[in-house]
Amino acid sequence: MNALLPILVFATLAFTTSADNVPPKCTWQNCPKTEPDQLNVHIICHTHDDLGWLKTVDQYYYGSQKQITEVGVQYILNTVVKELEGHPDRRFSYAETGFFWRWYMNQHDFVKHQVKKLVNNGQLEFIGGGWAQNDEAASHYVAIIDQMTLGLGKLNQTFGECGRPKVAWQIDPFGHSREQASLFSQMGYEALFFARIHYLEKEARLRNKSLEFVWNGSDDLKTNILTGSFYNDNYGPPEGFCFDALCGDDPIMDNPKMEGYNVDKKVNDFIAFVKEQASHQRTNHVMVLMGSDFQYTNADWWYSNLDKLIRFVNEKQSTAKVNLFYSTPSCYVQAINAAGPKLPSKSDDFFPYASANHSYWTGFFSSRPTFKAFVRQSSALLQVCKQLDTNADLGPADYGDLNILMNAVALSQHHDAITGTAKENVTRDYEKRLFRGWMEGEQVINDAAAKLMAKNPETSVPKQVFCPLSNISMCEVTKTNGQFVVTVFNGQARVKNITIRIPYYWRAATVNDFNGAAVSAQVIKTFAPAYQLANTNASPYELLIPVQVGPLGFASYFVSNKTSERSASRGEADFMELETLVIEDYIENAEASSREQIRDPIVLQNELIELTFDASGLVSKFTDLKSKLSVPLTQEFLWYKGYGADKNEQLSGAYIFRPNGTMPIRVTNQVTAELITGPVVNEVRQTFSPWVSQVIRLYKGKPYVEFEWTVGPIPKEKSNPITKEVITRFTTGISNAGVFYTDANGRQMVTRTRNQAAMYRYENTEPVAANYYPVNSRIYIKDDHVQMTILTDRSQGGASLADGQMELMIHRRSFFDDGFGVDEALDEPGDDGRGLVARGRHWLLIAPPAKSASLHRQLAYDLFYTPILTYTPLTATIDQYRATFNTQFSGLRQPLPDNVNLLTLEQWERRSLLVRLEHMFQNGEDRELSQPTTVNIKNLFTTFDVVSVRELTLGANRELKSSAEHFGRNMNRWDTRNRWKEQTNIELNPMQIRTFQIEVQRKPTFHHAQ
Amino acid sequence: MNALLPILVFATLAFTTSADNVPPKCTWQNCPKTEPDQLNVHIICHTHDDLGWLKTVDQYYYGSQKQITEVGVQYILNTVVKELEGHPDRRFSYAETGFFWRWYMNQHDFVKHQVKKLVNNGQLEFIGGGWAQNDEAASHYVAIIDQMTLGLGKLNQTFGECGRPKVAWQIDPFGHSREQASLFSQMGYEALFFARIHYLEKEARLRNKSLEFVWNGSDDLKTNILTGSFYNDNYGPPEGFCFDALCGDDPIMDNPKMEGYNVDKKVNDFIAFVKEQASHQRTNHVMVLMGSDFQYTNADWWYSNLDKLIRFVNEKQSTAKVNLFYSTPSCYVQAINAAGPKLPSKSDDFFPYASANHSYWTGFFSSRPTFKAFVRQSSALLQVCKQLDTNADLGPADYGDLNILMNAVALSQHHDAITGTAKENVTRDYEKRLFRGWMEGEQVINDAAAKLMAKNPETSVPKQVFCPLSNISMCEVTKTNGQFVVTVFNGQARVKNITIRIPYYWRAATVNDFNGAAVSAQVIKTFAPAYQLANTNASPYELLIPVQVGPLGFASYFVSNKTSERSASRGEADFMELETLVIEDYIENAEASSREQIRDPIVLQNELIELTFDASGLVSKFTDLKSKLSVPLTQEFLWYKGYGADKNEQLSGAYIFRPNGTMPIRVTNQVTAELITGPVVNEVRQTFSPWVSQVIRLYKGKPYVEFEWTVGPIPKEKSNPITKEVITRFTTGISNAGVFYTDANGRQMVTRTRNQAAMYRYENTEPVAANYYPVNSRIYIKDDHVQMTILTDRSQGGASLADGQMELMIHRRSFFDDGFGVDEALDEPGDDGRGLVARGRHWLLIAPPAKSASLHRQLAYDLFYTPILTYTPLTATIDQYRATFNTQFSGLRQPLPDNVNLLTLEQWERRSLLVRLEHMFQNGEDRELSQPTTVNIKNLFTTFDVVSVRELTLGANRELKSSAEHFGRNMNRWDTRNRWKEQTNIELNPMQIRTFQIEVQRKPTFHHAQ
Repeated sequence: MNALLPILVFATLAFTTSADNVPPKCTWQNCPKTEPDQLNVHIICHTHDDLGWLKTVDQYYYGSQKQITEVGVQYILNTVVKELEGHPDRRFSYAETGFFWRWYMNQHDFVKHQVKKLVNNGQLEFIGGGWAQNDEAASHYVAIIDQMTLGLGKLNQTFGECGRPKVAWQIDPFGHSREQASLFSQMGYEALFFARIHYLEKEARLRNKSLEFVWNGSDDLKTNILTGSFYNDNYGPPEGFCFDALCGDDPIMDNPKMEGYNVDKKVNDFIAFVKEQASHQRTNHVMVLMGSDFQYTNADWWYSNLDKLIRFVNEKQSTAKVNLFYSTPSCYVQAINAAGPKLPSKSDDFFPYASANHSYWTGFFSSRPTFKAFVRQSSALLQVCKQLDTNADLGPADYGDLNILMNAVALSQHHDAITGTAKENVTRDYEKRLFRGWMEGEQVINDAAAKLMAKNPETSVPKQVFCPLSNISMCEVTKTNGQFVVTVFNGQARVKNITIRIPYYWRAATVNDFNGAAVSAQVIKTFAPAYQLANTNASPYELLIPVQVGPLGFASYFVSNKTSERSASRGEADFMELETLVIEDYIENAEASSREQIRDPIVLQNELIELTFDASGLVSKFTDLKSKLSVPLTQEFLWYKGYGADKNEQLSGAYIFRPNGTMPIRVTNQVTAELITGPVVNEVRQTFSPWVSQVIRLYKGKPYVEFEWTVGPIPKEKSNPITKEVITRFTTGISNAGVFYTDANGRQMVTRTRNQAAMYRYENTEPVAANYYPVNSRIYIKDDHVQMTILTDRSQGGASLADGQMELMIHRRSFFDDGFGVDEALDEPGDDGRGLVARGRHWLLIAPPAKSASLHRQLAYDLFYTPILTYTPLTATIDQYRATFNTQFSGLRQPLPDNVNLLTLEQWERRSLLVRLEHMFQNGEDRELSQPTTVNIKNLFTTFDVVSVRELTLGANRELKSSAEHFGRNMNRWDTRNRWKEQTNIELNPMQIRTFQIEVQRKPTFHHAQ
Repeated sequence: MNALLPILVFATLAFTTSADNVPPKCTWQNCPKTEPDQLNVHIICHTHDDLGWLKTVDQYYYGSQKQITEVGVQYILNTVVKELEGHPDRRFSYAETGFFWRWYMNQHDFVKHQVKKLVNNGQLEFIGGGWAQNDEAASHYVAIIDQMTLGLGKLNQTFGECGRPKVAWQIDPFGHSREQASLFSQMGYEALFFARIHYLEKEARLRNKSLEFVWNGSDDLKTNILTGSFYNDNYGPPEGFCFDALCGDDPIMDNPKMEGYNVDKKVNDFIAFVKEQASHQRTNHVMVLMGSDFQYTNADWWYSNLDKLIRFVNEKQSTAKVNLFYSTPSCYVQAINAAGPKLPSKSDDFFPYASANHSYWTGFFSSRPTFKAFVRQSSALLQVCKQLDTNADLGPADYGDLNILMNAVALSQHHDAITGTAKENVTRDYEKRLFRGWMEGEQVINDAAAKLMAKNPETSVPKQVFCPLSNISMCEVTKTNGQFVVTVFNGQARVKNITIRIPYYWRAATVNDFNGAAVSAQVIKTFAPAYQLANTNASPYELLIPVQVGPLGFASYFVSNKTSERSASRGEADFMELETLVIEDYIENAEASSREQIRDPIVLQNELIELTFDASGLVSKFTDLKSKLSVPLTQEFLWYKGYGADKNEQLSGAYIFRPNGTMPIRVTNQVTAELITGPVVNEVRQTFSPWVSQVIRLYKGKPYVEFEWTVGPIPKEKSNPITKEVITRFTTGISNAGVFYTDANGRQMVTRTRNQAAMYRYENTEPVAANYYPVNSRIYIKDDHVQMTILTDRSQGGASLADGQMELMIHRRSFFDDGFGVDEALDEPGDDGRGLVARGRHWLLIAPPAKSASLHRQLAYDLFYTPILTYTPLTATIDQYRATFNTQFSGLRQPLPDNVNLLTLEQWERRSLLVRLEHMFQNGEDRELSQPTTVNIKNLFTTFDVVSVRELTLGANRELKSSAEHFGRNMNRWDTRNRWKEQTNIELNPMQIRTFQIEVQRKPTFHHAQ
């Protein structure tokens, strides 16, 4: 074998030398020749590689667990590269950088070189290029931008210009959001393609030749993008032309002497297909996708047959007038742009998606509620960690690996991850990865703490640990230490004033702040409904501490179970005997009498709000104490019976929400309620049933009502179990006339109208499910006087099915598969197998419409940027601790303006940093805050000064030419020059996000400065 | 794309030039380095590609019909070549030329060049190399030699020396024949490998470290061959190491950070496996097969993982002492030969094969009896066509394509074809291909007729047509023409004196021979049991004509339904009123009385034999009228109930014969018999049941009894159908003491002993099935005085389960699958769906042992070389016809000696011919005929003279160095020189076959000579 090696090396050199002599031509500079007088058929060879679904991402990568499905991404990329090599006409388009990068890093240099050549000669094109193909309903825009930046960055650093995707590729997500279109436009994509649109909209677009159109992604930004929805069903090949191992279609059998010779039939069928397709499109170009889920594990099968198809179809070119060739999406876009058809435009979105009249994909908006929350919190943690990484200037000598968290958060945006539509085991794997990300995040925090907390670099900082189970009132540090320090990290660019909640094991606590000053805290009995937390080691108490943390900063608080010598009066938080109004008696009476008869209803209030409860224990009225605005308000829990059992029907499942009837069932009429008051929080604790409870809170000085619901285990009948879709429903007197508003990916708001669609004639086959929309961060209804807004802590489905009413689906348990491939019921076992218990928060705002945006915009960020808490035992006195360690830090010299968010602060290539600033408001939302604003970032930061800046596209993979040239159809709108500027004043228009690579001058590290 | 083309061409040239500078090194000249102090593990990458089984050969080639199995040979070869390219350590071994050739011919020159390079550098090794991997039980040696010659010839003409397989590879056939081993040795193979041996022999060989041994393939020829039976079950990879898409095993997951990292486990498991294997073998080399049925459709999956396995195992080399590398069978053989272990020897065979104690693979000996007969007849047709092709010197200008017949006959030798173990549809496909072969054969005969029959080259010869349905008494030409010519073609190298049988539609016929002389023929009423031929258009009569045809020749006979003017007396054959002795009365009596009471039994006789029937209508006595030797003889039909229904048991099916009990059931006790006599044949027609009938014939002057049985449709019960295995049983008084003899592939005889095995301790778990052996052409028993021999017209299973008795299984209908993959019951529907009707012949010989061989050896050739009949209407007088056309031809100037067969006469490369001569007898079989003999071929033939000869190995792919050097373990025993000799005297020792390429001097074509 060794004898041959020199030959191969020689050949390699031959390749190298020759290839290097030719300047790289990216795909779009090297497009196949088209024929003006023929139907040009762009054959797009592609695969769709889910980063987890039926198998975990690793199982898919390696191709293990073949009994589930015999596919392996390593083989796809291995074989595709071999098929492209030596066949310069063949092309391939690949989308998922999360897989590609893993594969590429495992290749030998020889293969890496081959791949670069294929990218440079236009045979291999990256499309999409995010780490995953993120979901568009449930993914938050912060996470979308992060995951796109991660994927695009890998491509950029490896392949440069030719590795930059020009076409966004969202072929599988179950509906498409307007914000996503806007983000793609801002990332510099030329076009966006996808497959799944509402079946009625598809019919309309086929009729009107408007499968391709210009999508206006934002009312605030001119983010138009050429958008194409595919002609064929989904994103697979025409029927009869799937040449993958996974398909049943016959290959092209071209030996006329053999059984089954089928060239004539295949050619005729194909020509008929593309001609039919062309009759629904506006140019003489059509794109035919060849490939589908995990196809090309044996690329040879595809190319062997496509070579023949192309040859045989083109042999008929003189009569058929069809010109068939391998192409890529960017070449197709180039051809379309050159043809310049007049295209229709669109400015709504593609929610909800329905594949048939009873198949509304609105269940996944709420599927797996705890996982959705975990993803959201992990994204918040990631922001804090990236900031700390930057501010502490961490590097290879440190221990934490931020990539693990970054990759896990990116991965979880995948459209079968955050959606809840992966198998149970696969979801566990996502959780495990996120958990590992948290472990690394904890390490990054410790690495940063070593630099930012220690006043003397030689001092070792006590280990900071998370209490990941604190949401179910468990924490090892607070349990085993009478005295401890809790440090609160704030990822927001403004001062955070919030109340933290700590599992606590003593009846009394003394709390001191970072300055040693006593803090008025509150010890409260843990509210843990027995059945819901059956096997809990929940702490008996919770400690509530109001804290204040500077922008991008942290602050440490000291807790002791002893009465502090110095400040017993102020710092001491005693267990409050419950001022409980037990209303069980009333309930019994209520059943026999009307509500009006009940005396002494519970009233919950703080300085701003009064919430009145009726005799059934439910909220009945909201009063704004300042304005005296008072509205009737009811909040209750109900559940829809999901379609189940009848296998011939569309059932409710992980994807689909299909209630059996329109009237949900009330969980109970008997609510047990207790009122608890204290210096920090006043709350009403409601028990609806063994599986539904809630705490309604008014925090001191806060303008919202917090509803912390706990739902589960949703009961499962022993025989003939009934799928249950649980909602929380808020009812007021607001006359919203069928109109409501939901956010798109936590950013711009989209107007929804009940029983109506913008682009097609709505058919009311599913009166409930068809009116559900994704709620990423908020939903509101309003009339001229009042707006009721609900902020969510995770993505959920929501609707306004009756005027004055809003509902959010907070949990669901389905006992049947809904037939879209996952082949499992969405029946989450929870920790103990009895069924998942979910807990979450809604923040309710009721205010005049003109004032509402200023509240919900800012509070949404408060809710998103969950404070990150670390704990450490306190083994010295507070003074000793304070003398040794910094107990407070801020990354900013001053908070940003109230309408600006620091979206990104992270280390970037070659010691530069990446910064994104965004305007938080839409045009016209708020008289003041919707105005343009300016931030000078030069001396904004505490650990560095900005030397120069270079503006990038949103995906950070290209320099932005100028904002004037920002949008349009120009294929070459980026400079390749490095245009660094010293101009650091950044102007922001409503909804604008600006992305900068910045060169900085580091200041002496923090502990040196102190 | 065009811009890149020059680079690739340049690179190609670089490859080409460099590769061409290195003299080719075949695999065995370029073997991997082995380590003397380690366990050397030869990784053999291979696939096993059945030429039809669950899918047709075309479906397998293209990979269509994926719902049956997702495999396609084109993809295997496509991807393997790509995987070998650029990885000089990787190797692959490929066996089936039938697939390889088809693929290779469809490749572009670039790929062909690549493949040649891979063959020349030892990466791609051909093993086996026949057109298919022929069955060893049912294939006749003539067909085996033809199919091997076809496959090896393609490899030879394409790749030369490096394309010549050195290792025979029969990994799947269900048992192994001694004759096959002998043939392989004569073909020059260094070694033979296979997988399937009797489970008890496997156990014994594992115990004795004798999986590898030297097999003595012949008592007459010194054809020893190194033989290896595989260690692992069948021919697949070790458990857990099947990396194909078809397997469930996990890939090697080598990223320690990822879920499912399994390198340590895989490495340890593998080392444990090979060490265990090594403990059962005699050298420090083991062969581990990586691949199985249709594996490597995605070769990348295999090589990606094997690369890792080799790397990780070898990383442990210093401690584990295991050296892992890609190798090939020939390199393994080279290593074994170098190690020179003392190996045991064997001289019996591997029949019957049993995979478990109730799983005897002896059913397939008889499965699909009509297909087996069709294959046999097609092989005979092929010989005639090749001879005519040669004698008429046909070429590209002629119309027939002999390759189609040649390929079809070769294909049908495949071990799932002739065995009857393919699915019904696939078997239909084989039949269709054979039928197409017959069509081409007909054309070749017409092409040859144009040259050999026409006295004037301008005269067009009337079209000769086959009557393919004449075996069920149907023929269009004889039906629609009162006068016609029938031409009889003789493939034997001696004068053929036989009686032909023609469907006939008139009560009288006048027959004249090629000279115009009247022939005494016989018109006989067709015997067609109503139920068996329900929808028949059978002719009412059959015309029997005794004919005489010269060696390799033809002779035309003239038939007229009018009484001939000239020779009314001699040439006229009138319908004989049946001289029938209806014995139905006797049967009725017989039931009430004993057989002795019956008077006037039927006696059937000719000049040589008298056959007496008893009152039940069965044969009761055989008398040799010359020697007065008289023996009791009974022949009857019975059937075994096959195991069925109980899915937990081993059932009887296509492969397996498992009777439920040892006692077969007699078809009937009531036989209706009629005696018919005439000038040509005397016969008794027996009706046993609606589905079993028989004609027993004595032809004028012939020393054997012909039993023409017709069986079917075997009844199927409406509910709980019972599998039926039908036998014909012959019982005499011969005291054979448990010993009987069956042929191996129609050639050497093998001694069988009831309830005994040579190499292991026999266990009598299947008293019937375990004593069944393949009968290709004959079976006999004998004692000191008498030998009873039965010649068969096709392959069948046979046994002697009691002394004096022999049985042959002639038909079987199973209603259950037997669990070995074909997944269909062997329930042949026949033409009308009621079940297959089979008809066949046995020739019975009873003679003293010393005289028997001379009879059965020669008669077996008579039976094999079925006369080929063509028909044409006679539109002129006989004299006119004779004046215009040659009515007689012989390819030989004189017949060959009685003990020599002309095995092959066909056109060979560059206008040369291929000739094989064989000695027909074994040593000691016959006092005279077993002697060595000599034939001078110089002036033997009528259409050419032999100029010079060059002796080749049996497979005709190499020159034979010298007969003295013919056998042994020398890896380089062939010359590459062309040693042409003028010495044309060919000496033949018993059983010897000699193969010659001959250069000839053509004589003026036949019609010119006349």
